[in-house]
Amino acid sequence: MNRMERARKQMRADGLSALLFTSRENKFYLAGLYSGSGYILLTEKDIYAIVDGRYYLAQKKRMTEGTVLLIDADCTAAGHIRRILQEEAIGRIGFEKDEVTVGVWEKWQRDIPAEWVPLSLPHLRSVKTCEELSCIRRACRIADQGYEHILGWIQAGMTEKQVENELLHYMKSLGAQKESFDIIVASGENGAMPHAKAGERIICQGDFVTMDFGARVGEYCSDITRSFAVGEAREPLAAVYGIVLKAQQKAIDSIRPGRRCQEIDQIAREVITSAGYGENFSHNLGHSMGIACHEDPRFGPKDDTILEPGMVLTVEPGIYLEGIGGIRIEDDILVTENGCEVLTHASKELAVV
Amino acid sequence: MNRMERARKQMRADGLSALLFTSRENKFYLAGLYSGSGYILLTEKDIYAIVDGRYYLAQKKRMTEGTVLLIDADCTAAGHIRRILQEEAIGRIGFEKDEVTVGVWEKWQRDIPAEWVPLSLPHLRSVKTCEELSCIRRACRIADQGYEHILGWIQAGMTEKQVENELLHYMKSLGAQKESFDIIVASGENGAMPHAKAGERIICQGDFVTMDFGARVGEYCSDITRSFAVGEAREPLAAVYGIVLKAQQKAIDSIRPGRRCQEIDQIAREVITSAGYGENFSHNLGHSMGIACHEDPRFGPKDDTILEPGMVLTVEPGIYLEGIGGIRIEDDILVTENGCEVLTHASKELAVV
Repeated sequence: MNRMERARKQMRADGLSALLFTSRENKFYLAGLYSGSGYILLTEKDIYAIVDGRYYLAQKKRMTEGTVLLIDADCTAAGHIRRILQEEAIGRIGFEKDEVTVGVWEKWQRDIPAEWVPLSLPHLRSVKTCEELSCIRRACRIADQGYEHILGWIQAGMTEKQVENELLHYMKSLGAQKESFDIIVASGENGAMPHAKAGERIICQGDFVTMDFGARVGEYCSDITRSFAVGEAREPLAAVYGIVLKAQQKAIDSIRPGRRCQEIDQIAREVITSAGYGENFSHNLGHSMGIACHEDPRFGPKDDTILEPGMVLTVEPGIYLEGIGGIRIEDDILVTENGCEVLTHASKELAVV
Repeated sequence: MNRMERARKQMRADGLSALLFTSRENKFYLAGLYSGSGYILLTEKDIYAIVDGRYYLAQKKRMTEGTVLLIDADCTAAGHIRRILQEEAIGRIGFEKDEVTVGVWEKWQRDIPAEWVPLSLPHLRSVKTCEELSCIRRACRIADQGYEHILGWIQAGMTEKQVENELLHYMKSLGAQKESFDIIVASGENGAMPHAKAGERIICQGDFVTMDFGARVGEYCSDITRSFAVGEAREPLAAVYGIVLKAQQKAIDSIRPGRRCQEIDQIAREVITSAGYGENFSHNLGHSMGIACHEDPRFGPKDDTILEPGMVLTVEPGIYLEGIGGIRIEDDILVTENGCEVLTHASKELAVV
């Protein structure tokens, strides 16, 4: 099923015959328009890209099907939408309620007479196409290479920020558009904070360092985490590393179509809990990724989504010891027809640099 | 007037006794919380930071006045807000309508019994404090140094992306947290697109190159643009350069408290129009900047805001010739008691590298 069919299927399931898309992610997904500006309107009859002069020609080139409409002094976006709804006799229109602000919604309700239906579309993009997977694979490859590069480059005495700057520069030199999200380089006790950013801390002999990062390629993300030791691998984290790796591997080995997301989370959580660190694994096991770095479904205790071939999720257990540090290991996993494929390949043997 | 007083003044002007802030920018402005997560609730009596365990301790350290409340299994954010509204007998609460999504608003209305009042707060942060200006000055200095570095480094044969990567890496090595926005490197005919990004185009002998970029320091932005020539400065752009520079200088010379934003826009626009390029200057003259890179007020034809000391705006006229290229020159300007101060200092003499 192609992307537009997926969206129309969702539209019909919600009893609608028009959907207005405003998120960059869905505008890109359906019509190649990665921009905060412009609108994509999907109806049963057609798909419309409504853009201003900055995007008009590029959008014309980009769209093999559908209609491109120009926002200018003669016709506003609201004017185009009003006319289409009228021509196609559409009275109700769905929109992305987790994307559209109250201010914009107020304006639409004023300018465009229709019943506006707030929708969540969390699973629209969850099953990836081959073209999408090709971008994700390239993004994963660059992240793998970035990790290898830093392992050979990092030295005690550098700041976390220096490492982050080098990693980003290197991944961009390999063709990454940018980072998937703010790169995490958490050394020593900073490793105990799952969401630490790269800061001014100087990396010392005996530290564990956790790097959580990804590359963006063709608007698709990768997301990988590795923890490694500088100089020597000290306890208790050296032992913790083995537990986290075991939890991750067991979870990955369990991924296949038909299983529920929460089961996979539970499998990793049990390994960590039975090792006595249940309280120290304070987040979900993983999340889907694609155009956005965090998408649904999630490997979390409450997510009962059934896995399908073509979904891509991270598996990223972690153990965090306040005042000491932390270990997290993360890979990107594609659900296949019979099981899964690990898309990130950086070594998971405990590295000491 | 301090930041909290500015916000309370705005609150009273809107006839309210409580404001809930959710934008990163305003949460940082009022309480140092630069995060997509957490809430800042301002009332007549107090200011509350409502955050989860990841942010609680840091927020406690950060706030010299006000109350930090923890979101956990015992009390949700909605629970905290309900209790405060009840204790302070508040029935109406304002929120940032251009920030809050329809989905979030639906949830609030369900969970927190109050009259929710959608507000625009475009001018809350427009007059900067000394501490804010100190960050902006540092961000401007790094942008100046970045430009000088690239002038000495760039060569024909490089791609726009290579230049972008080097510029970002260099600014980060000087202490920038990151770029203010995606760096623009537009060479040759790409210079005709005001919003071109850095792409795979190879920079050639005889090209003009426009770089539009900024550094983020202490969560504050700078934003500078320079156009320069590679090898030789060819016509018509060499002559256009002089027109843009004249327009920019005349606009800057006119900035002082009491003038309206639209007048400054008009002054630059007249220089460009009388030189015959009015149609080729297709955007506003400038915008305010601070924690966000684009803030209100704007130097635009429709903005009648009166300039006040402490406002910081860009002045960035441009002329774009389709198929040929473009010139844009941008500086960051502080409105002072008697006139203005230019915060960016990179040379504006036409450079040929």
